[in-house]
Amino acid sequence: MAGPHPAVADVRRAVAAALADLPPGALVLVGCSGGPDSLALAEGLARWARPGRRGVDGRRAGAVVVDHGLQDGSAEVADRAADACRGLGLDPVEVVALPPDPGHGGGGPEARARDGRHAALADAAARTGAAAVLLGHTRDDQAEQVLLGLARGAGARSLAGVPPRRGVVRRPLLGLPRSTTLAACAALGLEPWHDPTNAPPPPGERGARRAHVRGVLLPALEAGLGPGVAAALARTAEHLREDADVLDALAADLLARARAAAGDGGDPAGDGDPDPLAAVVVLDVRALSDAPPALRRRALRGAAVAAGAPAGSLGSTHVGALDALVTAWRGQGPADLPGGVVARRADGRLRLARP
Amino acid sequence: MAGPHPAVADVRRAVAAALADLPPGALVLVGCSGGPDSLALAEGLARWARPGRRGVDGRRAGAVVVDHGLQDGSAEVADRAADACRGLGLDPVEVVALPPDPGHGGGGPEARARDGRHAALADAAARTGAAAVLLGHTRDDQAEQVLLGLARGAGARSLAGVPPRRGVVRRPLLGLPRSTTLAACAALGLEPWHDPTNAPPPPGERGARRAHVRGVLLPALEAGLGPGVAAALARTAEHLREDADVLDALAADLLARARAAAGDGGDPAGDGDPDPLAAVVVLDVRALSDAPPALRRRALRGAAVAAGAPAGSLGSTHVGALDALVTAWRGQGPADLPGGVVARRADGRLRLARP
Repeated sequence: MAGPHPAVADVRRAVAAALADLPPGALVLVGCSGGPDSLALAEGLARWARPGRRGVDGRRAGAVVVDHGLQDGSAEVADRAADACRGLGLDPVEVVALPPDPGHGGGGPEARARDGRHAALADAAARTGAAAVLLGHTRDDQAEQVLLGLARGAGARSLAGVPPRRGVVRRPLLGLPRSTTLAACAALGLEPWHDPTNAPPPPGERGARRAHVRGVLLPALEAGLGPGVAAALARTAEHLREDADVLDALAADLLARARAAAGDGGDPAGDGDPDPLAAVVVLDVRALSDAPPALRRRALRGAAVAAGAPAGSLGSTHVGALDALVTAWRGQGPADLPGGVVARRADGRLRLARP
Repeated sequence: MAGPHPAVADVRRAVAAALADLPPGALVLVGCSGGPDSLALAEGLARWARPGRRGVDGRRAGAVVVDHGLQDGSAEVADRAADACRGLGLDPVEVVALPPDPGHGGGGPEARARDGRHAALADAAARTGAAAVLLGHTRDDQAEQVLLGLARGAGARSLAGVPPRRGVVRRPLLGLPRSTTLAACAALGLEPWHDPTNAPPPPGERGARRAHVRGVLLPALEAGLGPGVAAALARTAEHLREDADVLDALAADLLARARAAAGDGGDPAGDGDPDPLAAVVVLDVRALSDAPPALRRRALRGAAVAAGAPAGSLGSTHVGALDALVTAWRGQGPADLPGGVVARRADGRLRLARP
């Protein structure tokens, strides 16, 4: 008997590797849009749970299909994806319809859709007692993420792409190119749905940034710099994520030291419970000014978030203004931060609070 | 009297800011190719040295023109650049002809040309007693550097572009776009030389990677992601350089601890003078395995270089093989590194040496 198509085998192997630590009897869900990546992933998960020759029994696999309601016909797309998952033997399979986007809150519509999807998946995992929720991001998604982060000019964290694991979420396919999931679906006779908002914009139109990156920029990079560019970008993302982990931990230490040196215990109400709505952050300037810029910048960013500035709206200009209060002090006025937070320097201390 | 053209003023201001710390009487050289960036820079330097209304006297400014001899007619190009520098009032102006590229040694021809140029400039600075040597890299060069680093898939340091200062070298124009140096030359009536190897390759041809990045990729990025991309890439480079400074310092500490824990004083001959040709590096595995990956990877890279592997030839595959000896030990054989260095694990120690 011939084995499975190589692409199918690659996906199944990646799923099995990502779930190797789970105990028998564990339930795993896949977040499935019906697109090629998550459909191939759903098949890999179904295969993982099917009792096989090796006799691993008691594994359970289900799916959650999130209907964002952002496009006409999204309910039908979700139902088709759920049917495909049931056809693969997944159980339970749930469709979760998100409430309409209120059109405000942090970030753009893409970020809000992502946040809504993640909340729905986490909720489904909690309700069903799932040990993990799988998402179908591939190496190409990772490469696109790096390019989008570059265009923002932010630091290592925003270039670091999505992590292979965070909380209950796991991404088994980050090491595989999108061509593998497409080939796996074709070999399995699965008919994935192709999201029209992912298609490259017609020539002359700007279109969505991610679609442009996917359809135009990555191919141009591969044409000019060689076919390994997507893999190189994904490797870059991994290295920068490891870098950011170290630097974020050191910056958190620095922030705690700078608060302690200013007598700020991080608990303004004195009731043992830091109150985020009344957050006041006070920092000792000297503790910060001696630190290397990479840590000082991250600590100041953390202080702004602790004082109530929304992380998604804090740009490098804001952090630069805070940094100037520390390192380029010439008696300047306060720095205005997102969320109505104001930073003011007096008597060798930096005070961040809503007025 | 009308002031200078805004682009000319931008370049002069950038030069003055980069040299603000120099004492009266200092000699500053500019490395000039005759291209628009270094020609505009040469004018800014000449202006800085000219006694002006503010009465700053005793500043001296000269130029070094490096002839790589890589193209027919390069001697004439160098002479024209030197004449242009003399016409701007720079003195001394030297032309340094590099010996022919032997075609071997670390890195590609571009890297060898850069190393030869840097050595010639450092030598000129030492001979003339110059306090600084200016190079004309712009924000666009920095952006190109980041894209080339991305395509290699290496870490933060290779994405960090060129530093504003290192040793005697300073780069005053890193904050300005290339369009400013072109506009400055035009406004001053200077006729820069345009290096044909910088021109974008004809359609269908691969051409040099940097030329492709400059002529095709950066414009495609700007078209797709907005006009701020070059500035964002340069800002990214700056942040990642600051990150790499912190991480490199921590990794050097880790490397020293891992050597000390293995009883390796870094002086195998025992004569108080570490002998690079007989370098043996011994590391305690446990000291490394507890460290975060971002530091362990850098420390292992440093160990390989200390054992004689050429830094330019060490890729992430080599570092990955070293890392596997530490964190995925299953009795595997030695790892072969560039420069004939072999890494072998035994008795909880990693030993790197030429056999």
